[in-house]
Amino acid sequence: MKQSDRSMAEGILFTDQYQLTMAHLYYRTGLYDKQVQFDHFFRNYPAYDGHEAGYCVNAGLEWLLDWMEWARFGEREVDYLSQQTGRTGKRLFEDDFLDWLRRNGSFSGLTMRAIPEGRVVHPNVPLTVVQGPLAMAQVLETSLLNHLNYQTLIATKASRIHGSTQGRLVLEFGLRRAHEKGANAGARAALIGGADFTSNVGASAVLGYPPKGTHAHSMVQVFMGLGEGELAAFQAYADVYPDDCLLLVDTIDTLESGIPNAIKVFEGLRRRGHEPIGIRLDSGDLAYLSIQAARMLDEAGFPDTSIVLSSNLDELSIWQIITQVQEEAPRYDVDPEHLISRLTYGVGTRLITSWGEPALGGVYKLVAICDHGEWIPAIKVSESAAKTPNPGHKHVWRIYDRRGKATADLLSLDDEDPGEMEEVMLHHPTEHGVCRTLTQDDIHEIEPLLVDVLDEGKLVYDLPSIDDMRELRDADIGRLDPGVKRLISPHIYHVSLTEQLWTLKQELVDSALENS
Amino acid sequence: MKQSDRSMAEGILFTDQYQLTMAHLYYRTGLYDKQVQFDHFFRNYPAYDGHEAGYCVNAGLEWLLDWMEWARFGEREVDYLSQQTGRTGKRLFEDDFLDWLRRNGSFSGLTMRAIPEGRVVHPNVPLTVVQGPLAMAQVLETSLLNHLNYQTLIATKASRIHGSTQGRLVLEFGLRRAHEKGANAGARAALIGGADFTSNVGASAVLGYPPKGTHAHSMVQVFMGLGEGELAAFQAYADVYPDDCLLLVDTIDTLESGIPNAIKVFEGLRRRGHEPIGIRLDSGDLAYLSIQAARMLDEAGFPDTSIVLSSNLDELSIWQIITQVQEEAPRYDVDPEHLISRLTYGVGTRLITSWGEPALGGVYKLVAICDHGEWIPAIKVSESAAKTPNPGHKHVWRIYDRRGKATADLLSLDDEDPGEMEEVMLHHPTEHGVCRTLTQDDIHEIEPLLVDVLDEGKLVYDLPSIDDMRELRDADIGRLDPGVKRLISPHIYHVSLTEQLWTLKQELVDSALENS
Repeated sequence: MKQSDRSMAEGILFTDQYQLTMAHLYYRTGLYDKQVQFDHFFRNYPAYDGHEAGYCVNAGLEWLLDWMEWARFGEREVDYLSQQTGRTGKRLFEDDFLDWLRRNGSFSGLTMRAIPEGRVVHPNVPLTVVQGPLAMAQVLETSLLNHLNYQTLIATKASRIHGSTQGRLVLEFGLRRAHEKGANAGARAALIGGADFTSNVGASAVLGYPPKGTHAHSMVQVFMGLGEGELAAFQAYADVYPDDCLLLVDTIDTLESGIPNAIKVFEGLRRRGHEPIGIRLDSGDLAYLSIQAARMLDEAGFPDTSIVLSSNLDELSIWQIITQVQEEAPRYDVDPEHLISRLTYGVGTRLITSWGEPALGGVYKLVAICDHGEWIPAIKVSESAAKTPNPGHKHVWRIYDRRGKATADLLSLDDEDPGEMEEVMLHHPTEHGVCRTLTQDDIHEIEPLLVDVLDEGKLVYDLPSIDDMRELRDADIGRLDPGVKRLISPHIYHVSLTEQLWTLKQELVDSALENS
Repeated sequence: MKQSDRSMAEGILFTDQYQLTMAHLYYRTGLYDKQVQFDHFFRNYPAYDGHEAGYCVNAGLEWLLDWMEWARFGEREVDYLSQQTGRTGKRLFEDDFLDWLRRNGSFSGLTMRAIPEGRVVHPNVPLTVVQGPLAMAQVLETSLLNHLNYQTLIATKASRIHGSTQGRLVLEFGLRRAHEKGANAGARAALIGGADFTSNVGASAVLGYPPKGTHAHSMVQVFMGLGEGELAAFQAYADVYPDDCLLLVDTIDTLESGIPNAIKVFEGLRRRGHEPIGIRLDSGDLAYLSIQAARMLDEAGFPDTSIVLSSNLDELSIWQIITQVQEEAPRYDVDPEHLISRLTYGVGTRLITSWGEPALGGVYKLVAICDHGEWIPAIKVSESAAKTPNPGHKHVWRIYDRRGKATADLLSLDDEDPGEMEEVMLHHPTEHGVCRTLTQDDIHEIEPLLVDVLDEGKLVYDLPSIDDMRELRDADIGRLDPGVKRLISPHIYHVSLTEQLWTLKQELVDSALENS
């Protein structure tokens, strides 16, 4: 895209056409400034090649807020809309609406609550709650979903990968296979969810983390092409970066050429007073090769060098590599736990694209509308009860059991406080009569999850740093039942409604079906 | 992301750190201005949930060129690099290199040939060939792959979807589930590969196509919330857009409420001299519901209104819907072919994310290096013959058989012309002795595929419009054997080497292994 087109393509028009035709209709019918509430939530965990996750990690809010602050209908956008025509050649948007957009076409009237980035989140829980005048609250939908769906998807995948490594470093390497400029949002979400660093220089620069990377096969090929070979390439690297020497050893033959050459170079470095960082393996049987690499490096006197693994890694392949190392390393007199502790994982395509489920199905649904000063819960009756949004103003509570583990997220009406209930009834969101009752004795803590973010467009939230988000994430994951964290067939976390909210929902569904 | 950070994050630093550490090493070792050639190609077709495609549609070049023209090392980028430190706290990049980057850190020295956007392409064929000084040709890698991988992936998916619709309209609806700002590149690629329009307003604006969309469930909910119901919502829509009336009929109950209400509104429109466009179905059994909708609309005197289908569509679900319509419609006295001809497909998540295979594994490999005026083919010896790139300067030819169908893509050495060979030997790229020989009598045409794009940074290519690209695509797909176009288990298209290229490759592999 031409740079000059970027603000047009990524500003307020970064939306679906129907948001604009609806806004125009709301203007025409006088409904445009009715106060409404939209809830953003997802209905299902991502299911990677069929393996459904047990939790998600929330992400994307700060970049959405940056977009909302900047995006507005300026002359160029309004001019574009004025040129749109319908089937008969008549203009689609009339002048009075376009004048209104010029004056009112920003998000400065919206109020927002949200669950902070980095927190563990679950299906059907409002993650972001938007209140404000109908037309602009509606226009926000597409971009809000775009910003939040993708980052939450990637933070979730990163958290799974992080969880599979037994605490070792995870490097995000996916820029070349990412969905174009979405790569930067993906790198950010990866850093929130579980990656320690990224190879993406631009994202690192704006996020304040050092980018990671050393060299590619091509560097070895250049030296080979000039008749100098792999050893000369490694030597050149060590000369330029004597204290940061990490060598990619699989350009020719990992065990016969790459590792022996790396060891020669490492020995030279040590003679000159420098310690090497280690090697990277980017092809072949990474479990077998890492055992052999560890054996060779140990024997050569480099037992503490890192072994970086890359090549189509994800949480399942890392789990498999670790399991294979645990089983096979002893046969080669390699201590498996020591080897596992020196591994680092460079994770590319499968993290940045959320391989196995490349989209999160977040939605943004009208749940309430204010008419003559009175808020009316709104309902959408779908073909399945599971797809019917929970209506009205709500609170979101996380309930911790006596072990301090999160046992359920509870949605209540706005005026309910489960902390003041003698017994807290957790109603299944769709199944009639399926309930669980907790007494206050069963409960260690009840935590409200939504925080105030925008008050009529004004930021009233102290934006956390990514390090803060990582602390929130670690704390939340530490309070999950281990079964919920399983990569395969996790225990299903309960998201429940209070009895009052459940009853309201049923009444609204019945009434909508009667009146249709 | 803050707008002020965007040029930093998306400019020349939109790359992997190792490109910069290698560039620095090339500067230090005096290799930075050695002329080299990198080939960009992909090794495998995308395999959607295991179903490998039979062809791809090339896309992304123009936006890559836009990026290359704009991206360069300015003060802000160089300043950032000057602050990077290694393990010991010492600066990673030295001042002389940074000065060099300030003066030379753009892509103005690169020469490029490429296969045009919109053309059908196959694995292991160079799609983009970059020649130029080593350091900047290397730095280009990540962003080149990022720009070309994703758009080729999406153009390919869009082409499959287009092929499944029997020529009906395809609308790209995926912005909300796309990978953040990558959505715009995805919309462009969809338009190149098979979508007719997109709902994405910003992408439509900069690409010059009208955006498509009417209204969402939320509009009906607003009217319901205010006690006015679905019919009032539809009526309001028809009042504002009498000549562009397309109604979403599944907010409450498609057959009991939505379609009957739509028909009432359509009858009113017709009385006032307007013809409705049609309805949209966004949930439920789309095949069954479209048959019932057609029956009801036919009976009401609206046999030519469109029926737009959306909800998790892709090429397989569209194929399934059409098959089910063909089988079931006659039972309800609905003419299946007429119904199929009035369907339009709104395709969201599964197109914009390339569901089932969300990344194309394009790579950028060093294939030649110039030393003292002599070009030397470069080789990377991997663990498998299939992953070893084809070395050196090459031509790419497409060979059409006597039916005018493309029968193979042939890679030759630079000085070979298969048009001048009595017999053209098509050598399997990796299997020794597996060949096919064509005489000139078997051949209708031999077409070179690569065109000159950049000559030392100067654009020497007349960039085609998206409409031009669509023509190229339609022509190429028309010249594919029908078996290659199958959605499931396609016939494998041949990509072959000339005998000379095959021999060169074997010699280089043997020599690399001997010298390692």
